[in-house]
Amino acid sequence: MAEKNSELMGSNFTLKPEKPLDNIRIVLLETSHPGNLGAAARAMKVMGLSRLYLVNPKCAIDDEARARASGAVDVLDAAVICASLDEALADTVLSAACTSRRRDLPHPAYTPRRAAPELLSQARSAPVAIVYGSETFGLSNEQLGKCRWLLNIPSNPDYASLNLGAAVQVVAYELRCTLDDSPLDLPGFVPASHEEVEGLVVAMEETLVEIGFLDPRQPKRLMPRLRRFFARAGLEKEEVAIWRGIVNAAKSGGRRD
Amino acid sequence: MAEKNSELMGSNFTLKPEKPLDNIRIVLLETSHPGNLGAAARAMKVMGLSRLYLVNPKCAIDDEARARASGAVDVLDAAVICASLDEALADTVLSAACTSRRRDLPHPAYTPRRAAPELLSQARSAPVAIVYGSETFGLSNEQLGKCRWLLNIPSNPDYASLNLGAAVQVVAYELRCTLDDSPLDLPGFVPASHEEVEGLVVAMEETLVEIGFLDPRQPKRLMPRLRRFFARAGLEKEEVAIWRGIVNAAKSGGRRD
Repeated sequence: MAEKNSELMGSNFTLKPEKPLDNIRIVLLETSHPGNLGAAARAMKVMGLSRLYLVNPKCAIDDEARARASGAVDVLDAAVICASLDEALADTVLSAACTSRRRDLPHPAYTPRRAAPELLSQARSAPVAIVYGSETFGLSNEQLGKCRWLLNIPSNPDYASLNLGAAVQVVAYELRCTLDDSPLDLPGFVPASHEEVEGLVVAMEETLVEIGFLDPRQPKRLMPRLRRFFARAGLEKEEVAIWRGIVNAAKSGGRRD
Repeated sequence: MAEKNSELMGSNFTLKPEKPLDNIRIVLLETSHPGNLGAAARAMKVMGLSRLYLVNPKCAIDDEARARASGAVDVLDAAVICASLDEALADTVLSAACTSRRRDLPHPAYTPRRAAPELLSQARSAPVAIVYGSETFGLSNEQLGKCRWLLNIPSNPDYASLNLGAAVQVVAYELRCTLDDSPLDLPGFVPASHEEVEGLVVAMEETLVEIGFLDPRQPKRLMPRLRRFFARAGLEKEEVAIWRGIVNAAKSGGRRD
């Protein structure tokens, strides 16, 4: 209760780091080329980023990775190895998946330039993640579904195949350029964490099955649509509580039938 | 004379390519790592650039270069190999050297974001070059002196060492983003070519020595200062003619003394 009050009083915002770049994670999924790990680390450090998260890397941080990292070996050495995307997104309040894919049910999609101010604004008070898929397979729908935004880097429609390190470089560059320009405004609300949103979506799915609204054998696009809605809206902590209340109420209602 | 009239009538501008990116050269000086050649080619093609110029490359376009180029091997194969920077800058009307160096007598220095609109505007009617030094030695003062602008990519002051391919990627990305936004305005004048400006500077230097204003044994910073002035101003064709007239007049005046 004390915790909730302090949130309502906005005391979370007294903990604003001077360097929002320190709150931005670069999350690489199932990377297979050591050279790309090194290139990503160098691309990050050269723009002032340092938090590298590797989800199930398919290669080691070897000599090639270190050679390509050049003076950014410290970023490689401090990389956090995770067993799942959820683990890498723990505590984040905003996540953006870098992809050239267009989906039939897209999340909010922005260019890095358009997205950078909000990414930095959120990163002033809590962790934010930029997510990159594997070199060969990109991001699965399930992985994309766990991210709130898509980042589309403008590119040649005839050849849009950015190298992984280059894609990290472009976004890191945008973040730095925007940081150099941006005012110190704070967002107007207390955003929900990744876990809170995931917990809500899972609870909602279970309840929708339970009350017979969602047929697990024919789920259609229902859950992706809901995810999209939450992603676009950007949930506050209090709104998660409200939605969980609604879900519980729906469940009880279903049982009463 | 007919040629001069057509220039004054602005007929040069009837030849505007629909794709200004086709008029932008990426010039790499004395590159020593084949992987960087490939990375640069890929970085270019993914943003719609295709004109690669290699000045005295210190490595071959080998298997490593082709592997890193991925689907941009065509850009590598079409690369123009030059024996000098002047050769690579032939016919260009604007050249920008990408460097993190700060000099005591700087050229006009811009960020890629600030420079991109003018680079594209000029590239609608004539070739433009972005110049990158070698991985180890960067750009010499003499090489910088031949370029009109400096491009400073914003970066971490504690570690500003961008990889060559990454630096090509950032500038190519800015050009593409700006192209997607920019109106089709034409520049208001007929810019002088690289050769015309170089010819003027050389003639001026000879004349300044001849008339006793420049001591070749103690040249100080005179010629760099003049180059800087012309670079900042951006010479029109007609202005080159005017300046050459002034130089000739000074020479004759010197002889009369």
